[in-house]
Amino acid sequence: MNIEQIRAAADRLEGHVRRTPMLSSPFLDEIAGRRVWIKPECLQHTGSFKFRGAWSAVSALPEDAKARGVIAFSSGNHAQGVALAAKAHETSAVIVMPRDAPEVKIDNTRKLGAEVILYDRAAGENRDAIGAEISSERGLTLIKPYDEPLVIAGQGTTGLEIAAQAIEVGVVQADVIVCCGGGGLSSGIALALEAEAPGLRVRTAEPEDFDDVARSLRSGKIERNSKLSGSLCDAIITPQPGNLTFPILKRLAGPGFSVTENEALRAVAHAFNRLKLVAEPGGAVALAAALFHGDEIEGDDVIVTISGGNVDAEVFQQALRTPNEGSPKGDAI
Amino acid sequence: MNIEQIRAAADRLEGHVRRTPMLSSPFLDEIAGRRVWIKPECLQHTGSFKFRGAWSAVSALPEDAKARGVIAFSSGNHAQGVALAAKAHETSAVIVMPRDAPEVKIDNTRKLGAEVILYDRAAGENRDAIGAEISSERGLTLIKPYDEPLVIAGQGTTGLEIAAQAIEVGVVQADVIVCCGGGGLSSGIALALEAEAPGLRVRTAEPEDFDDVARSLRSGKIERNSKLSGSLCDAIITPQPGNLTFPILKRLAGPGFSVTENEALRAVAHAFNRLKLVAEPGGAVALAAALFHGDEIEGDDVIVTISGGNVDAEVFQQALRTPNEGSPKGDAI
Repeated sequence: MNIEQIRAAADRLEGHVRRTPMLSSPFLDEIAGRRVWIKPECLQHTGSFKFRGAWSAVSALPEDAKARGVIAFSSGNHAQGVALAAKAHETSAVIVMPRDAPEVKIDNTRKLGAEVILYDRAAGENRDAIGAEISSERGLTLIKPYDEPLVIAGQGTTGLEIAAQAIEVGVVQADVIVCCGGGGLSSGIALALEAEAPGLRVRTAEPEDFDDVARSLRSGKIERNSKLSGSLCDAIITPQPGNLTFPILKRLAGPGFSVTENEALRAVAHAFNRLKLVAEPGGAVALAAALFHGDEIEGDDVIVTISGGNVDAEVFQQALRTPNEGSPKGDAI
Repeated sequence: MNIEQIRAAADRLEGHVRRTPMLSSPFLDEIAGRRVWIKPECLQHTGSFKFRGAWSAVSALPEDAKARGVIAFSSGNHAQGVALAAKAHETSAVIVMPRDAPEVKIDNTRKLGAEVILYDRAAGENRDAIGAEISSERGLTLIKPYDEPLVIAGQGTTGLEIAAQAIEVGVVQADVIVCCGGGGLSSGIALALEAEAPGLRVRTAEPEDFDDVARSLRSGKIERNSKLSGSLCDAIITPQPGNLTFPILKRLAGPGFSVTENEALRAVAHAFNRLKLVAEPGGAVALAAALFHGDEIEGDDVIVTISGGNVDAEVFQQALRTPNEGSPKGDAI
């Protein structure tokens, strides 16, 4: 992986992907004790950065492969990114989802034009086998969620924007905290910053108990999570860092953050109050690190990603009801 | 009022006010039956477009007046816009607020650097008299919320951005639905569009029972609201159209929309689900018009403002619980 792959992805994404703004709030600065700059990828098409990688991958396919269509395994943000990117390229997407996924997610993925194929987790059906069969029958190209150079390159375009926007606001030296699952977004941003803003350093943020990347960065080798479900931060739960993404992070990233679920929910509430943004809990872990782990950060500025906003109303309301110290009655302005 | 005043305001605002993006969602297009383009001023500094007019007014003051400071009457978005604009200009702001305003709004206005002076509505204290006394004692300049050319010019910069962004997305002919209280935002946008995008036409959106502008546009003269409170759309409730703003709207605007509170709340929920934006009910009336009053609109495209996002958690949760036809279980993606 190198910066040229990210620049090529940026060319393919031009005019199709939103250049999300760089936001800030004096209220958040006060909590964090330093200036907090927010890159809100929840405002990206389909509500998460995943659309970047999906567009990058679909747009780079040879014409014949593009015409045959793509396939992905996902019940979340990657599914929607791939579905919309395929639709915009006038090709088909098959999304393999568990039968017990929330109905609304299945429905939304269909509405974005994808063919949804359901498998039965409980009955022991294996999604990889199902996917492999469909894929070979129809000649579909599998779009992996993070361990794929074209996807990493697409996510890395977020880093090109951060580099340019940091200069615009006068920040040359800062940590860039990135919500991290398999590491596609964080490794892509790390490569972009290495080339274009060497004073900015990526640091990953993950939920407590699912901090495989932070632990892997500490030990220097790939560590697995013992649990694979049971977090409100479901969007960024992966078993372990990717084989492509981890070496990049090992070379370029600083120490990772682990935040509690409570901190993630409080960050969701702050994004609501102060930024007028809808963040999903997993998409708010980087903001939580900036707000509540200031003692692990140096410098006058910190940049954070909000990686997605696909949260259901019940969980969002739970976040709004989570008490924040010093403002038990809520603090909307 | 003319376009040159708006262009001059844009020069003063450059680098200080956010150029908010232009967003869209295929899900909203489906509901509306046409393409819906959203200008989210809830992402503006202080969470509403009011910061534009405040900055425009404060930045245009002669140096001696600027040094003495400014005063405003408001418990809402205008208060915060003026407070932050004054602070950024290193001068002082006095905000006169009712003693029974929500504590959190008083507190936030103070945190933005303003001196808050409370008056007692129940005891019959007159805010204008209090304000006039303080203003003359200290030589403060009053920043009116809408019937002030510098403020209208500042709000009109939203229209310059809409004109440019409409061209970027290929829209040359469309209604631009604007959330309307006193008419500062809608008249400013109307003037900007007249000069820069004559195929775009402003139409106002207001809450039912507080639709003084829609009725005034119908009758051709200024009509008053019979009620002055009791709406969740509190941010955009004014007694009547402004003396400066109404003639502009009369000349340039199409018929106004009146939306129900239920429609405004459902629009808030759609902005949550589909745009990942926090809209206040009053800031969502234009989106409500586009989504639920499609039979009053012509053409393949419609542009709407979301004018603000300063809503407390309780009201926002009420919006999320408001059933939307066809998706009773919520429809987050």
